[in-house]
Amino acid sequence: MHRVKVKVVEDALDANNTIARANRDDFDRAGVTVVNLMSAPGAGKTALLERVLDDLGDVRPGVLEGDVQGSYDADRLASLHVPVTQLNTDPGFGGECHLDANMVRSAVPALPLDDIDLLVIENVGNLVCPAEFRVGEDARVMVSSVTEGEDKPLKYPLMFRTCELVLINKIDLLPHLDFDVERFVRNLDAVHPDVPRMLLSARTGEGVDAWRDWLLALPARREVAV
Amino acid sequence: MHRVKVKVVEDALDANNTIARANRDDFDRAGVTVVNLMSAPGAGKTALLERVLDDLGDVRPGVLEGDVQGSYDADRLASLHVPVTQLNTDPGFGGECHLDANMVRSAVPALPLDDIDLLVIENVGNLVCPAEFRVGEDARVMVSSVTEGEDKPLKYPLMFRTCELVLINKIDLLPHLDFDVERFVRNLDAVHPDVPRMLLSARTGEGVDAWRDWLLALPARREVAV
Repeated sequence: MHRVKVKVVEDALDANNTIARANRDDFDRAGVTVVNLMSAPGAGKTALLERVLDDLGDVRPGVLEGDVQGSYDADRLASLHVPVTQLNTDPGFGGECHLDANMVRSAVPALPLDDIDLLVIENVGNLVCPAEFRVGEDARVMVSSVTEGEDKPLKYPLMFRTCELVLINKIDLLPHLDFDVERFVRNLDAVHPDVPRMLLSARTGEGVDAWRDWLLALPARREVAV
Repeated sequence: MHRVKVKVVEDALDANNTIARANRDDFDRAGVTVVNLMSAPGAGKTALLERVLDDLGDVRPGVLEGDVQGSYDADRLASLHVPVTQLNTDPGFGGECHLDANMVRSAVPALPLDDIDLLVIENVGNLVCPAEFRVGEDARVMVSSVTEGEDKPLKYPLMFRTCELVLINKIDLLPHLDFDVERFVRNLDAVHPDVPRMLLSARTGEGVDAWRDWLLALPARREVAV
């Protein structure tokens, strides 16, 4: 039974990767760099986008918002005059807990790819399944809030292992928490040694310049990789 | 395609409910009341258990810990001298993002049902899929941390709608957040009017007596329901 289940999972992931490559081809043709932004619910993905999307100079951003239901984050971002496309996952009973390549594929025709240079795909808030499904992105960024505790890299290792950048958010709350930054970093290095990480606060703005600069440099890094 | 997918999901949930009833029969025969405890990652499920499990008088508690990987929470609870059984969901690629009835079924033989009166099943940290799968519980409790923002009931409505109690945790941080309790309560009432809710802090202990009393009263409420 177990081997059969693993085989089914592998086949599903193979199919997902095939569709992810098709998405990637479309993004490449349009010259659009794509970031898959992931975190637990309420870690601050949207707030971190609000901080930087109107400060990217010549780089024209767009956002694809993944949510089980509603368009609350899209409504927040609309005030930045950034093109936002909403993707809901709720046709299933309780809704899908992640975006997969096929869901993103269904949204591609609605994306203004000719008018943007950087597409941020804000995934469903969840530390498990989003890490399993590539969607055609160039880079994966995850946000971990200091309010969630130091043990998260050990408890959700795949998420921390498959990303190119870890944003450690809400550091303005550190004086009021029993959160040990060094211990978190040790746990992070145990599952993904030397992954770039940034300490920041979407609320106060501390550290967000580095996050903006990372986004700005991404297209150049991508060209080197291609 | 969409209707086929919905049918597959419905069949899977039917099978899950059948197994959940078998679990429930086993728990009933042993006279054990069962709570399914759910939340986003890092909302404080384990900390809220640490606060009350050694203060339940004649009620003998036990815990079934659901995690993708590792036994970090079980290790924390072991110091309370409470029987803890670990259930890991990681045979799949990235691990399952929730417990289902069949996973709990596989753990039943390892549970000391004759030695406990109350079993708390600590689910995987996730606000989507755990809400879709009954596991044979008497009651579902969810924890929402004030650090996650006021919009969570609207963004993850099934989770807030299917529970019998909402614990609003980390209220010691309220002075340092832009969290509007009244707005959260309005959003909660929009998806689940009048569901019992408690404001508390696992860190300071504020409000945890009410949580303990709710747990203590649960077996009596269950007998009335039976």
